[in-house]
Parts: sequence; C-alpha cells; structure tokens
Amino acid sequence: MNQKLIAEKLNISQATVSMALKGSPRISRVLSETIRKLAEDSGYHPNLAGQLLRQGRSNVIGVILPSLVNKFYAELFQELQKLLTPRGYLLYFSQIQERGGLEQLADYLKKLRVAGIIAIGSIAGELFPMCSRDTALVFYGGDKPLNLAASQILPDRFQAGLEMTRYLIARGRRRIAFLGVSSQEEQRFRGYCRALNEAGIPFRPELAVPGRDSLNSGYEMMRSVLAGSPDTDGVFAHNDEIAIGAMRAAGEAGYSIPGRLSLAGFDNIETGRYLHPALTTVDQPREAIAELLAEELLASMNDSARHRLVTVPCRLIIREST
Amino acid sequence: MNQKLIAEKLNISQATVSMALKGSPRISRVLSETIRKLAEDSGYHPNLAGQLLRQGRSNVIGVILPSLVNKFYAELFQELQKLLTPRGYLLYFSQIQERGGLEQLADYLKKLRVAGIIAIGSIAGELFPMCSRDTALVFYGGDKPLNLAASQILPDRFQAGLEMTRYLIARGRRRIAFLGVSSQEEQRFRGYCRALNEAGIPFRPELAVPGRDSLNSGYEMMRSVLAGSPDTDGVFAHNDEIAIGAMRAAGEAGYSIPGRLSLAGFDNIETGRYLHPALTTVDQPREAIAELLAEELLASMNDSARHRLVTVPCRLIIREST
Repeated sequence: MNQKLIAEKLNISQATVSMALKGSPRISRVLSETIRKLAEDSGYHPNLAGQLLRQGRSNVIGVILPSLVNKFYAELFQELQKLLTPRGYLLYFSQIQERGGLEQLADYLKKLRVAGIIAIGSIAGELFPMCSRDTALVFYGGDKPLNLAASQILPDRFQAGLEMTRYLIARGRRRIAFLGVSSQEEQRFRGYCRALNEAGIPFRPELAVPGRDSLNSGYEMMRSVLAGSPDTDGVFAHNDEIAIGAMRAAGEAGYSIPGRLSLAGFDNIETGRYLHPALTTVDQPREAIAELLAEELLASMNDSARHRLVTVPCRLIIREST
Repeated sequence: MNQKLIAEKLNISQATVSMALKGSPRISRVLSETIRKLAEDSGYHPNLAGQLLRQGRSNVIGVILPSLVNKFYAELFQELQKLLTPRGYLLYFSQIQERGGLEQLADYLKKLRVAGIIAIGSIAGELFPMCSRDTALVFYGGDKPLNLAASQILPDRFQAGLEMTRYLIARGRRRIAFLGVSSQEEQRFRGYCRALNEAGIPFRPELAVPGRDSLNSGYEMMRSVLAGSPDTDGVFAHNDEIAIGAMRAAGEAGYSIPGRLSLAGFDNIETGRYLHPALTTVDQPREAIAELLAEELLASMNDSARHRLVTVPCRLIIREST
C-alpha cells in the first residue's frame, strides 16, 4: 500500500494523504486519524532513500535520551515509538550523558537529514543552539523554561518535590536526605528545600549528596549518608533507579523501611511497584508526555516559528516504602 | 575529519581507511584499531545520505529486539552501540514481540537499505527468510542452531537451566516451579526437566506455568502457582523481570525467601543485585555477546557466504534469594 492507493481507497487527493501522514494541522483530526489508521493497518511505510533524494530530508526523527538503561526513558521511548511509527516515521535514538559528544551528535543528525528531533533531558536540551533553524526540535525535561524558539514540555518537578517532602515531613520525618543533583537549578531539590523551610527544619548540607543516575550510585550515596548521619530518617531520591540502590544500602545497614527510614523516588518506573516494600514515588505521566512531544514535533515541522511551553503536573504515588 | 584526512594523517590510502571502517578482514587488526580510534577521536561520521546515493546502501545497522523495557536487552543494545557507533554505523533499533509485524519490519529495513541486521530473540530470528540474500544478518538467541546461511550466537541455555535446577535441588528443593516458556523447544526448560529427571523428581505440569516476559506476568504466574500448589519450595524463572514480579507475589503471600522458597532468575540484569534479597540468576555475558555480534556482522558484510555458530557459555550467579 502506498499513498496513491490510500488516496484512491478514501477518494481523496494524494496530497491530502501526504499532509495527514506528516501531521499537517491543515487536515482535520478525524480525517488524519482515518488516513493514519489505514496506513498503519496496511503496513504503509514511506521510502527513506526516496525521500532523501526528493526532499533532502528523511522521515527519520532523532530521539536523544540520557540513557535507555534507566527504565523511565525506555518506557518513554516505547510510548513515542507507538505514536510515531504508525505515522511513517522511523525513530533513530541516541543516548548521550555528557556534553562532550553533543556537537558530534548534532553533526550526525544533520547528515542524517532528520525531519525532527525530540531532545530529552537537560544535556540534550543543549543541542538547540547546535541545530540548524529549519530542523524542528522539541524538548522534554530541563529545570526551567528555555529561552529558545522551540516547544518545551516541562514536568512540574518543583511542585512534586515540594509535595513529596511535605508528605515525608507529615510522616514525622525530620532528617530527610536528598540523593541526586542538589543544586538550586534542580527543581526537585528546590521543592525539597522549600518544604523544609516551611516546616522550620534547617537544611543540612551533609544530607544532600550528589551522584550519578544509576543503581550503583544510589547505593553508594545512601551508604555515605548513613555512615555520616546515622540518624537519617527519610530519603527523597532524584529518581527511582537511585532509590532502588539506596533501598538496598539501607537494608544492608539494618534500617527497616518504612519503620526507621521512609524512602521515596521519582519517575514511577514499573519496577518500583514490585519491590518489597513497594516504592513511593512521583509519577511523570509517560503517555501524556509522549503525546505532547509527538504533537508538538509534528506541528513544528509545519510551522518552524512554533514554540510552546507546556507544563505537565506530576503526582505522588504513595506505596509501602514511606 | 573525513576518510581522506584520516588517510593523510596515517600516510595510507583512502581505500584502506574505508575498508577498515567497514570492518574488512583484509586490513590487519592493529591497523584497523588505529584507524577506528582516530576516526572516533576526531568525530568522523560517514554521510548517510551520500552513501545511500552512491552505493545504494546506508551505514544503518538494524537491531531487532524483543523489548527495551527488559533491561537485559537495553544493556545489550548499549554494548552494541559502544562497539558500532565509533565505526561509523548508525544503529536503528526496532522492538518486535509478535510475529504479526515481521514482514512489515523486513520491508521497512529493505527500504532503509540497511548495511546489516542484528536480530535478537527467537521471533527476530524469523526475519531471516524475509530478508534478501545480500543483506548481512546475524542472530542472537533462539533455542537451537538455525539451518540458515547466517551467523548465530547461541547462549548455552540448556546447560544453564540444567545447572541452576541441579543447584536448587542441592539446596533441598523438590517442588520447583518453572515460570515462563515451558515447551520442549525452550532450552532452559529442557535443562530444568533433565535435572528433575536425574534426581528422580517427577515433573509436575501444574508447576510449569506459561506467561509473558514482564514484571506483571511474573507476578501473576507466581500467584497462580502458589494458589494451586502452596507447597512449592523453589522457583526457576525464565528471566529476571519475571523473577522480580514473582518475588513480589511470594512476599505478599507470606513466603520467606530463601527460607521457604528459593527463587532464581536468568539474565543477570543490574537490578537483581540491588533487590532485597539479591537475586540468584544466570549471567548471559553481554559484553562478549555484543563483541561476537559486531564481529560476525562486519565479517558477513564482506563475505555473504559466512555463517558460523558460536555457543556462549552462561554461568550461575548465586546470591541471597536461594
């Protein structure tokens, strides 16, 4: 099945089919869905090489992530794939964790002539200035609105950090460690500081331990906190991977969870629900985020001046670990 | 930096650089490594569109996986990326879990004019007959040698299943459940059956529960086993994701691990080490597997008749859950 056959089947023009599959806002939502559904069911895929030749642009969308080994990103990528593959796009993904490789990656994406870029995570956000103006780009994450002409989906991490820390305080915790990126740029951490302040609890720098995003880093951070401050009674981890590592270290050190130590993560990865105790966390709604990213990207491909800032609320998921 | 500059810098021909970057066996290993290292350090990347035009073939390697949300595959993919990106290849990955989408995917890869395909998992293996003869393809996984002209990396799952079950029996377990794919085609399961047989333990079909590869499926399978056979004293799970779900269900049902129930997984994903109790499992050595896959694929690109069968041993990782 190709565009021509789809057009014939629906008795519409091939141009309409083409525009719908590219996500043009000029085609009604109902008609677009019908066209996409038919294209999907019939296994239609545009010809990449042909597109490169004709338009100087491919149907590849670059997705830049900090890591696939962190399940949150793997789950988010999966949602994006579900939305964009049926629309005829090919997702090329690259993971990048350090600033070092950014220029090289931007150059690579240029050579690939990507139709657009979905940049996820604060480092990926630094791709903006390196990309040409005519490449559609949308951004998820980061800690503040970027002053750039691109759409940004921004989870409300400040509010989530504030609410989670308030909740830990309401559970009677006073010596709450923060494991992860503890800088005033980091919104989860700002929320944590604000909640402590509201409750009249002094900020203790020895409880704010920096580390990387990994299970092992979470494990090491927790060991270091408990060694220096054995009276720690709460933990708010930057994300669930860190929280899982921290939970192991606390268990090894003989701290019962949640008896002696309340422990909370961030992201709501699937694994957290199956831990024993199950992990309290903050849900960043993957499906809604993926839909917003896909919608903004497709719209930006048709309107290079488009840039919106969409804030996504997060919500606490209270389970057994707190 | 391009191939010409690399050639000038090393005082060799551009053809040599090109061959080395494509993994040609005609270039010595030492020289190939030098060229790759220089290419990597200088950020050299071939131009995809240009390649498509000139050669009718891209520098894209398709990697087909059952799932990225299973950490084993995410970790394996990461290893492949480490090896192939510096050689100038772009990895396009697709996850496929059902036979239904295979023809569509094969067609898509053809249109993408991939330089080669790394097919991981038994369903991906069924891509072989759908691909054209001149597409290099290597295969990881599956349960038996395939009778096809392509290299296959085959983990010795029979031996691993045999040894893990023998180990559980040696720990005094007699009513050992098998959670996952329980067919005589499945080598882990065959190893399990053989070990039971050796020890004179009758096979109990109600303990061999089929299910999907997911945390939730592991959880449901374990609940179902314990409801029907509360005297179950051991579990061998098809993989670690299933084992983590099963561990949760056993805990909820009040079974102490490993006191009343020994529980083992398969794959050695990183998370298993941080559980409480840490998970006994079987290591499938990712790094070695990724190296074999990359090596076989690059060699197959230069020699379409190449096909080797390489068996990779797995080893038991004994931790706290057994």
